[in-house]
Amino acid sequence: MPVNLTAPDPASLLPVAGVRLGIASAGIKKPGKRDLTLIELAPGTQVAGVFTQNRFCAAPVTLCKQHLAHDTIRALVINTGNANAGTGEEGLSRARQTCEAVAQLMGCAAENVLPFSTGVILEPLPADKILTALPAAQADLASAHWSEAAHAIMTTDIVAKGASRQAQVGGKTITVTGIAKGSGMIHPNMATMLGYVATDAAIAPSLMQQLVKEVADVSFNCVTVDGDTSTNDSFILIATGQAGNATIADPAGADYAALKAAVSAVSIELAQAMARDGEGATKFITVQIEGGRDHAECKQIAYAIARSPLIKTAFFASDPNLGRILAAIGYAGVSDLDVNTLQVYLGDVLVAEKGGRAASYTEAQGAAVMKEADITVRVALNRGDVSATVWTCDFSYDYVKINAEYRT
Amino acid sequence: MPVNLTAPDPASLLPVAGVRLGIASAGIKKPGKRDLTLIELAPGTQVAGVFTQNRFCAAPVTLCKQHLAHDTIRALVINTGNANAGTGEEGLSRARQTCEAVAQLMGCAAENVLPFSTGVILEPLPADKILTALPAAQADLASAHWSEAAHAIMTTDIVAKGASRQAQVGGKTITVTGIAKGSGMIHPNMATMLGYVATDAAIAPSLMQQLVKEVADVSFNCVTVDGDTSTNDSFILIATGQAGNATIADPAGADYAALKAAVSAVSIELAQAMARDGEGATKFITVQIEGGRDHAECKQIAYAIARSPLIKTAFFASDPNLGRILAAIGYAGVSDLDVNTLQVYLGDVLVAEKGGRAASYTEAQGAAVMKEADITVRVALNRGDVSATVWTCDFSYDYVKINAEYRT
Repeated sequence: MPVNLTAPDPASLLPVAGVRLGIASAGIKKPGKRDLTLIELAPGTQVAGVFTQNRFCAAPVTLCKQHLAHDTIRALVINTGNANAGTGEEGLSRARQTCEAVAQLMGCAAENVLPFSTGVILEPLPADKILTALPAAQADLASAHWSEAAHAIMTTDIVAKGASRQAQVGGKTITVTGIAKGSGMIHPNMATMLGYVATDAAIAPSLMQQLVKEVADVSFNCVTVDGDTSTNDSFILIATGQAGNATIADPAGADYAALKAAVSAVSIELAQAMARDGEGATKFITVQIEGGRDHAECKQIAYAIARSPLIKTAFFASDPNLGRILAAIGYAGVSDLDVNTLQVYLGDVLVAEKGGRAASYTEAQGAAVMKEADITVRVALNRGDVSATVWTCDFSYDYVKINAEYRT
Repeated sequence: MPVNLTAPDPASLLPVAGVRLGIASAGIKKPGKRDLTLIELAPGTQVAGVFTQNRFCAAPVTLCKQHLAHDTIRALVINTGNANAGTGEEGLSRARQTCEAVAQLMGCAAENVLPFSTGVILEPLPADKILTALPAAQADLASAHWSEAAHAIMTTDIVAKGASRQAQVGGKTITVTGIAKGSGMIHPNMATMLGYVATDAAIAPSLMQQLVKEVADVSFNCVTVDGDTSTNDSFILIATGQAGNATIADPAGADYAALKAAVSAVSIELAQAMARDGEGATKFITVQIEGGRDHAECKQIAYAIARSPLIKTAFFASDPNLGRILAAIGYAGVSDLDVNTLQVYLGDVLVAEKGGRAASYTEAQGAAVMKEADITVRVALNRGDVSATVWTCDFSYDYVKINAEYRT
C-alpha cells in the first residue's frame, strides 16, 4: 500500500491557462478503463523534455525528441497498457500514425504532437484502437481535467499522482500543476516514467531545456524503486506564457529562481509519490549522503543503499540489520573511501562510526526508527561539502507478486 | 529450493594429500550447530587468495591479506554465525586473538594462520567461544572431512557445496577438491563469499596468485544472486605439492593449463552451486553475452540482465516477459549499442531482433523454455568476438522471506 500517500483532491490541482486535458477509453487496457489522454496546448506554448537514456528507448521517445527539436508543440497524446517499446520500425510507424490522427483532429501538423506510451514492452501498439477513441478524448477536453488525466496515465500505480503550486513571478501569480505515473521499473536516468508539469508562466524558449534539466536532477532523477531504467521515461515541462508576467530571460534572476522553485516543488512531490507508491511499498525511505567530495560519489553511495535488495527487505521486516547498509556503502565503488571516518544515522540515531557500530547505539533505538513508515538513512562522509538525496521504498512480498503476475 | 543441486556424496570429495580438516560446534550459531572449521596444511604448502573489494571489508579479510603477504600458511580457521565485519579495531584484535590461539595449538606463528568469518555484520565476534572450541576442531582433523567442512561453513545455504576433479599433470595424477558457501549477498568482485580449493599439485609460488586470479575470473566472479557484494568474500587456493609432479613453473606450458582446467572446473561447479542455491531460488539462469567488443561491455550487459529484479521476478513466474530483458540490455550503459543489430535468445528460441520481437517468435515457444529449471538467456551483440557468462537465479517470495527474517 502507498506510504503516507493519497490521491490529490481534484480541486487541489489548479488549472493552467492554455492547457486542456481530455480522457477516453481506447480498450488497450481492460474495456472501460481510461487509458487514453489528450493534452491540448494553446498557441505560443513552450515545451521541453528530458528522456530515458535506455538504448532500447520506445518509439514514442524517439518521435518526441524529433518533434521537440524542430517544431512548436500543440498537443500531447498518452496511452497506457502498451509501451510501444522493443517494437522496431513498425513501432515508429504506429506512433507516427497516432500523431497524424491527433494532428488532423486538432488542425496542426504531426510534428506538433508529442506521443507517449507506457505499459507492456515488446507488444505491437494497437494504434487503431487509439485512433478510434481520439474523438472522444477531444470532446472531453477541459482545463479542469488534471485529476482525471492523473488517473488515466496510471499502470501499476495504486494512487494517482498530482500536485500544484502558485508563486509570485514579476508581480504576477503563476501556477504550476503536474501529474506523473510510475511505480515499478523506476530508476530514472535523465527523467522518469511519465511526468508532465505545466505552468502558465512566460519564459524564454532558450531557458526551457535548462529548466527542465535542472528540475529533473533534483526530482525525478533522485528516485529508484527497483533499479530498472525504463524504455519510456519522459519528463515534459510546458509553459503556456499566459500568466501575464514579463518573459523570464535571465537564468540568474529572481523570476527564474521563483519559477524554478515552484516547478521543483511540484516535481519533487511527484517523484516522492512514485517511491511512496513503489510496487509493494510499505516504507518510504530517504537516503541522504552528506559531506562528499562531489555529487557523483554521493549519488553512487546513495543508490548503492537505495538499490540493495538486502537492505530493502530488511526495511520491509522493520529489522535494523544495519550491517547491510555498511556493506552497501563499502561496495558502492568509491575506491578511496575511508570507512573509519564516516558516520551512519538511522533517523536521528547514530548507528555506526569508526568502522563499526557506535558505542552509544542500542538495538532498541534502531528498532524504534524502523517501525516508522517514513525513514531517513543519513551518511556523513566527512570528506567534502557536497550532498545528494535519493528516495526509494522497501522490497516486499507484494513487489514479487506484482511483477510475477504483471501480464496475467 | 536449490535448482538441480544436491549435496555432494561425501565419498566424491577426494582427500588432498597435505590437507586435514576438523569441525567443531563453538556455539556462535544455535547450540549444537557445526560452526567452526580448522584446516591444517602440511609444511611447504603454497597458498594464494583473492578478496572482496568492499571498503567495509571484514577484519579477517584484512588479516588474511597481511598474513599472505609475509608468511607461509599452515592453518585456516573459519567460523560462521558472525562476519566480524563493521567491527572496527576491536574486530581486528579479536581476529588476531583467534589466529594466536590456532598458532599455539598448531605450533606455528599467528602470521601462519588465515582467519575467515561469515554471518551477521556489525556484531562483535565471540572470540572466546572460538577459543574454547578450537581443541575439539583440532582433535577432529582428518583428510576425509571435506564434506563435513562444506556443511560447517554454511549460513543460509540449503545445500553443502563441494567438488573434486583429478587430472594428469607431468605424468602424475593430481587431485583438486574444493568447498564453498554462499547463497545471499552474492555479487562477487574478485572473489565470492567463501571458497577453498586445494590441490596436491606442485606449482611455483610465483604462479599461485596468477592462477587464483585467472580461476576467479571464470568462476566466482561470474555469479550474482542479489547484486550485493559481501564484506567477507574470500577465495583461497591451496597447493600442497605432494602429488609428485615436477613443479609447474611455466604459465604457458601444458602442465599449467591442465592444472588450471581442473581448478577451474571445480571452481565453476562451486560458483554455479551458489546460484543454484541462491536464496529463494527456483530457477538457475545462465546469461551469455556473445559478439561484444570487449569483456567489460559483455559483463556490463550480462549483469544488467542478471541483477534486474523485474527480470528475476518474471523468471520466478515462468513468464516470458521478454521486454524486460530488452530494457536491461538498453540501460546497461553501453552508450553506442545499436539495438537494431543484436539478437536475443531464450534457450534456443530467437526472441528479439531488429529492435523488436522476432517475427518467428511465439508466446508458446517462450513459455515452454520458461518452464525449465535451467534456462539460458543469450544475447548476440554482433559487434566483436568477445563473450562473457554470468550465472544467477530468480527472485521469489522466499528471497524476501529469508532476508526479512534473517536475524530472527
